[in-house]
Amino acid sequence: MSNYAPSLTHAHEAFLTDLFPGDGCVMRPEELNAFSTDASLERAMPWAVVRPETRDQVESLLRWAAAERVPIIGRGRGTGRVGNAVPVCGGVVVSMLRMNRILDIDADDFVAVVQPGVITADLQAACAEKKLFYPPDPASVRISTIGGNVATCAGGLRAVKYGVTRDWVLGVEAVLPGGRVLRSGRRAHKDVVGLDLTRLFVGANGRLGLMTELTLKLIPLPETSASVLVGFSDLSSSMNGAAAVFRAGVLPSACEFMDRVAIQAVRRIADIPLAENAEGALLFKVDGSEAGVAAEVKRLEAALRPLDPASVEVGRGEAEEAVWSVRRSISPAAYKIRPDKCAEDISVPRGRVAEAVEAAHAIGKAHDLTVLCFGHLGDGNIHVNIMHDASIPHEVEAAHKAKDEVFRLAVRLGGTISGEHGTGLTKASFVPEQLDSLNAEIMGDVRRVFDPHEIMNPCKGW
Amino acid sequence: MSNYAPSLTHAHEAFLTDLFPGDGCVMRPEELNAFSTDASLERAMPWAVVRPETRDQVESLLRWAAAERVPIIGRGRGTGRVGNAVPVCGGVVVSMLRMNRILDIDADDFVAVVQPGVITADLQAACAEKKLFYPPDPASVRISTIGGNVATCAGGLRAVKYGVTRDWVLGVEAVLPGGRVLRSGRRAHKDVVGLDLTRLFVGANGRLGLMTELTLKLIPLPETSASVLVGFSDLSSSMNGAAAVFRAGVLPSACEFMDRVAIQAVRRIADIPLAENAEGALLFKVDGSEAGVAAEVKRLEAALRPLDPASVEVGRGEAEEAVWSVRRSISPAAYKIRPDKCAEDISVPRGRVAEAVEAAHAIGKAHDLTVLCFGHLGDGNIHVNIMHDASIPHEVEAAHKAKDEVFRLAVRLGGTISGEHGTGLTKASFVPEQLDSLNAEIMGDVRRVFDPHEIMNPCKGW
Repeated sequence: MSNYAPSLTHAHEAFLTDLFPGDGCVMRPEELNAFSTDASLERAMPWAVVRPETRDQVESLLRWAAAERVPIIGRGRGTGRVGNAVPVCGGVVVSMLRMNRILDIDADDFVAVVQPGVITADLQAACAEKKLFYPPDPASVRISTIGGNVATCAGGLRAVKYGVTRDWVLGVEAVLPGGRVLRSGRRAHKDVVGLDLTRLFVGANGRLGLMTELTLKLIPLPETSASVLVGFSDLSSSMNGAAAVFRAGVLPSACEFMDRVAIQAVRRIADIPLAENAEGALLFKVDGSEAGVAAEVKRLEAALRPLDPASVEVGRGEAEEAVWSVRRSISPAAYKIRPDKCAEDISVPRGRVAEAVEAAHAIGKAHDLTVLCFGHLGDGNIHVNIMHDASIPHEVEAAHKAKDEVFRLAVRLGGTISGEHGTGLTKASFVPEQLDSLNAEIMGDVRRVFDPHEIMNPCKGW
Repeated sequence: MSNYAPSLTHAHEAFLTDLFPGDGCVMRPEELNAFSTDASLERAMPWAVVRPETRDQVESLLRWAAAERVPIIGRGRGTGRVGNAVPVCGGVVVSMLRMNRILDIDADDFVAVVQPGVITADLQAACAEKKLFYPPDPASVRISTIGGNVATCAGGLRAVKYGVTRDWVLGVEAVLPGGRVLRSGRRAHKDVVGLDLTRLFVGANGRLGLMTELTLKLIPLPETSASVLVGFSDLSSSMNGAAAVFRAGVLPSACEFMDRVAIQAVRRIADIPLAENAEGALLFKVDGSEAGVAAEVKRLEAALRPLDPASVEVGRGEAEEAVWSVRRSISPAAYKIRPDKCAEDISVPRGRVAEAVEAAHAIGKAHDLTVLCFGHLGDGNIHVNIMHDASIPHEVEAAHKAKDEVFRLAVRLGGTISGEHGTGLTKASFVPEQLDSLNAEIMGDVRRVFDPHEIMNPCKGW
């Protein structure tokens, strides 16, 4: 572990205010406060926040930071759920939100070139105007940045068909600690010259360098989509339903599931197009051409019929939104159960989702807590919500114990403690249960190739 | 650079014959000869060849090799075109062909677990029996191994829709120099815990360790496909045709092009369903459901109509094969032009393919040689074939000069000197023209994290 500067000296402060004039540098505690946390609600005060507008500024900053051993924590919109943007060992938080230009969307090359501060949904909208498509869609897509998405290898609903963020990054420009600029990858869709440093940056949580430009792969925008909400009398039937749909050769662009707790919670706040007796539900989306989508919906319905689902609601055109309201209502509805939640995102082999959900419910029961599960069935990515009341100490304690057991469950089933959120602060202590010492050693050594003094986003689980 | 053992001592030979009994170890020159080359036709004799059947053997081998500084060169079926399997600095070639078991194909998890020596087409056939699909399909798919495909990040025809090998690898088990076993990734389709070491192995050309087991992602097998061969009066019209198809929202599973030289060559050996006056051709494949494919073909035809193509031939069912015969005839037909070729696989931004092909023809003309181009238009991946007669010294010299210019052209257009073959021996001297010194430095340092003595596949361009 490196010896970090204990705090900013006056000379440090002068350097930062000179490099980032005006409101480009934030030092006042009341302003710093907003940058002390993220969606994890973990909290630690940064020494300063800077807002670069150019790569030159980032180069100067990282030259200085390496020399002075000042921790550097990159930050987008702070939507991360595991505390990766929280400066728990102090240091300077670098808000990338002013580097927010879409530099190019090229309908011939099928490439977008963007700065990291672009909101992902804004990029998608700009692509759609040219009938182009950038598929990754984390739940935060309307508020999170593409830089944050790449740093965390964001997943989302469409991963079952289109893969995760990693699969769409062709090139990365990043400033390394010390100030050198690494340009990896290019606009060519295929490139096998050298080790794959581009993809190494994806999901590295800002621990190798600060990304200043991203080159992304695009595809033609699908003409249309349709969605199908299916109710089942129990969870295992719903899993069989999903298996039947895949077996029929349908590759949906989303395949979400909800357990009975999620369904019951949503019923409290919304009228939903789902059979009264449904205790498991699936939500499929298919996309493609008009005729192709119509055919896929038919195949999907045919594949489900032998399983005798409790209800099948097809949403096309404007009605598509209605079937998705169920999915979108889960998070607000969960708070009708208890006011607080531990929301984890384990991922298991796809065939073991039912087992994982039943085991998660059993863990909740053993701790006298309600567990609500939903998520991306197509990827085996389960959002396990352990509901509790944070004002009641024994519920907090029980929720934490339950969370630990859920992580161990995921690893035991051949899965992972994080499918798409990362490990950051909140899961740091569990990383050694998943990654053996050889993995940890090599990851650390690779990290130090880029960052010998470990100034980039230090003190995180990965 | 490490100091390698100058050759095998008697003690080394005894170690190898003990570890690999019977024909597991090859030492006789006449038998070694077969392992001295690959599809590049570069040649260098290995000191020995071993054929492990178990991971234990690989562990012992790499423990010994690191201690004794013996270069280790992994090898599949030797179909690589750039000499990556050629032991140019000596050492022991490790044939992975006896580790050739398909360990698991799981229709619930949508995962295959295989040993590296499995032939990729055999894996695909075994998947198809369970209605599952492993999409990557390099041209060598029927003879090359999945281990070789992963080591080189093989591309292929379907990359335009399904991505390259990298996008289908979920987990890697590899033995590192020194004998330790790294297990990275798992059966979960999403996993963001730690740096992405799994994908770092993909395309690393056996320079980080020897892979002993691979976990691959599968999807449902598409129900059907159809192909469309379209002739155009010139190359630039064919490029406009491809752009129009993509603009119409069609994402084909293959989008190949042929230049006039390729078309004329094929005409010499085959009757082809292409208009007489065609000087550029496109070959599309679409896959999906019956109705979806029919709809895509219609959209594709409609998108092409305004460009007034010289001919449009749709191949469905058994007739699909016929339209592909054109594509398959290119390589044998090329030898009707001249008896030898320099076959390069540059990749450029997709919108610059026409420019690259015209420039490649001009380079040929300047050297009095015929250049034939075809390839994966959808990825901008162009196979540039510089035809010549290797028995005529000035043609060989001219071909080499032309090849150099083609590489420089690719880099100048924002592309890469290799879209899918790698750099190995034959392109090693060009790597510095594409990768700057910072990239080279970091790739070298990352490599030495895994292999401090640089015994794994040394003396290669990457």
